[in-house]
Amino acid sequence: MARSVVVDAMGGDDAPRAIIQGALRARSDGVPVRLVGRTKDLAPWLPRDGAPEVVHADDVVDMAEPPVAAVRRSQRSSLRIAMREVAQGRGDAVVSCGNTGAVLVAAVVELGTLAQVDRPALATVLPRADGGRLVLLDAGANVDVRPEVLATFAQLGTAYAEALGVDAPRVGLLSNGTEDTKGSALVREALPMVASCGVHFVGQVEPTTAIEGACDVLVTDGFTGNIFLKSAEGAVQTMTRLLRVEIMRSMWGRVGALLLRRALTRLRAQVEWDAHGGAVLLGTRSTVVVGHGRANPEAVRHAIHLAHDTATTGLVERIERRVAHGAAAKG
Amino acid sequence: MARSVVVDAMGGDDAPRAIIQGALRARSDGVPVRLVGRTKDLAPWLPRDGAPEVVHADDVVDMAEPPVAAVRRSQRSSLRIAMREVAQGRGDAVVSCGNTGAVLVAAVVELGTLAQVDRPALATVLPRADGGRLVLLDAGANVDVRPEVLATFAQLGTAYAEALGVDAPRVGLLSNGTEDTKGSALVREALPMVASCGVHFVGQVEPTTAIEGACDVLVTDGFTGNIFLKSAEGAVQTMTRLLRVEIMRSMWGRVGALLLRRALTRLRAQVEWDAHGGAVLLGTRSTVVVGHGRANPEAVRHAIHLAHDTATTGLVERIERRVAHGAAAKG
Repeated sequence: MARSVVVDAMGGDDAPRAIIQGALRARSDGVPVRLVGRTKDLAPWLPRDGAPEVVHADDVVDMAEPPVAAVRRSQRSSLRIAMREVAQGRGDAVVSCGNTGAVLVAAVVELGTLAQVDRPALATVLPRADGGRLVLLDAGANVDVRPEVLATFAQLGTAYAEALGVDAPRVGLLSNGTEDTKGSALVREALPMVASCGVHFVGQVEPTTAIEGACDVLVTDGFTGNIFLKSAEGAVQTMTRLLRVEIMRSMWGRVGALLLRRALTRLRAQVEWDAHGGAVLLGTRSTVVVGHGRANPEAVRHAIHLAHDTATTGLVERIERRVAHGAAAKG
Repeated sequence: MARSVVVDAMGGDDAPRAIIQGALRARSDGVPVRLVGRTKDLAPWLPRDGAPEVVHADDVVDMAEPPVAAVRRSQRSSLRIAMREVAQGRGDAVVSCGNTGAVLVAAVVELGTLAQVDRPALATVLPRADGGRLVLLDAGANVDVRPEVLATFAQLGTAYAEALGVDAPRVGLLSNGTEDTKGSALVREALPMVASCGVHFVGQVEPTTAIEGACDVLVTDGFTGNIFLKSAEGAVQTMTRLLRVEIMRSMWGRVGALLLRRALTRLRAQVEWDAHGGAVLLGTRSTVVVGHGRANPEAVRHAIHLAHDTATTGLVERIERRVAHGAAAKG
């Protein structure tokens, strides 16, 4: 049975336009969607006939406020109502392109976390140089964490990689080297905890070797994870720009680029975030996907597919089993 | 007058061969070099006639030991003797491709730090998308730091950027966002300290915008700085590999790549570490350049040029003035 996805139509830089257009595309692909937002704001972007169901929400989370305060204050916000729809069984997964911190807080308040999960983690899947996929968590939701939280993240990431079809996922702890003398104080304290939490732990892993394929799950705090992601993104963008400059320098370069156009397009699809569509919140009682704030309709469409597919794999149940297994491993 | 560079010939994965070959190339370019190492290990790689001067050192720093202990124990190591040569006025700058932590410790012990500099920082210069250069520090030497150390790094980086010819360098603090609610606890504590240390501070800067050109100096702890560097490096490597795969998929792609060969070579030179050659230790009483452990002869040659050019710009004196200016700014 197809799972239904509840979409916060008001979150994101280009909301509700980009969100609705993306939702309509996902629905054309066969994913049942429901939209949450101010009815009058949504109306101009909806088709006259056969529009998806809209759940009205008076309020929008104010992005100028700190996330916790903003979410607490706005009980009737589209974000909280979208979560509540799923909590009450009127949907299987939530998608929001709003502020990551606000989505995290709303998910904890409205959906709740699984037993033994203190803080949900934001996970994203990246292409590896060896053709495999790398689950990175936390990607930016939990900026300062205690070392024991990284062990929980290792369990959450393992369950997610298994749901993606990876057998006995290798878990690495993101670090600046692999020797015993390397690692921040946080990494060094977390090492024995991750090693004993019931996952297939391969130790400290550097960004370069992680991207090459040294592990399937890369665990880190949200600050470092976000720096990792944005550094890689920045390097790819710079390389693309410099390549364009070099190509334009000569006629033969321009001819070569024409012949390479298809290759370059495929390459871009592999390394750009909007082809991947979003990050998944792990550890909440239902599936939540956080889309990019700058999401365009195609990115929204992908985020909705990601939410649908994730709910279909039974990720929440896998995580529950994995966390229980980890607790048993520890004693 | 040309400054002379003292080279630790025993540090690096491919020492002494790669180090000596690089040093010979730098000497052909006109840089006076002296080598430090075990005479009998160096002899096979030296030319019969007109070999550079060799300062004998019995010992080599043991890489298996933690850096502090290893450096303390080996008083007669090539690394410490190279530093001592400069400390005693028999050279202007040191180059080593040994373990970064060991080079840092040896520099502090043998050369000493400047007044008001607790810990020297490792700085590296990266190409920006806008054609400018980005001074990143710390690149991996000081893994866990207190917030006030980041203010000192801001001063050291400003002096270095000025020595590179940047007028009133803009200083950013590496972070996961620019809003007040962003940043790790370390970043948030450091913000007011960096703002009041007498540099041109532009606030929190994300990796993507830093690479695009939002600042000239990017300040961070050595753990995060190292993750930043290696993530960018990994992304560039992956993109290069994926591009190769896409090119090889079709005949037109291969023809296009042939036409683009020059452009791709120039691009590689701009983004690969060995074209840049090394990182500079800032805050010690003489110039120290740390080459990459995997340095090949060409990278060693660049590191020696970097040491020579840096000593020529009077960086140490600039840093002294800048740190004094910062102390005055604070009151």
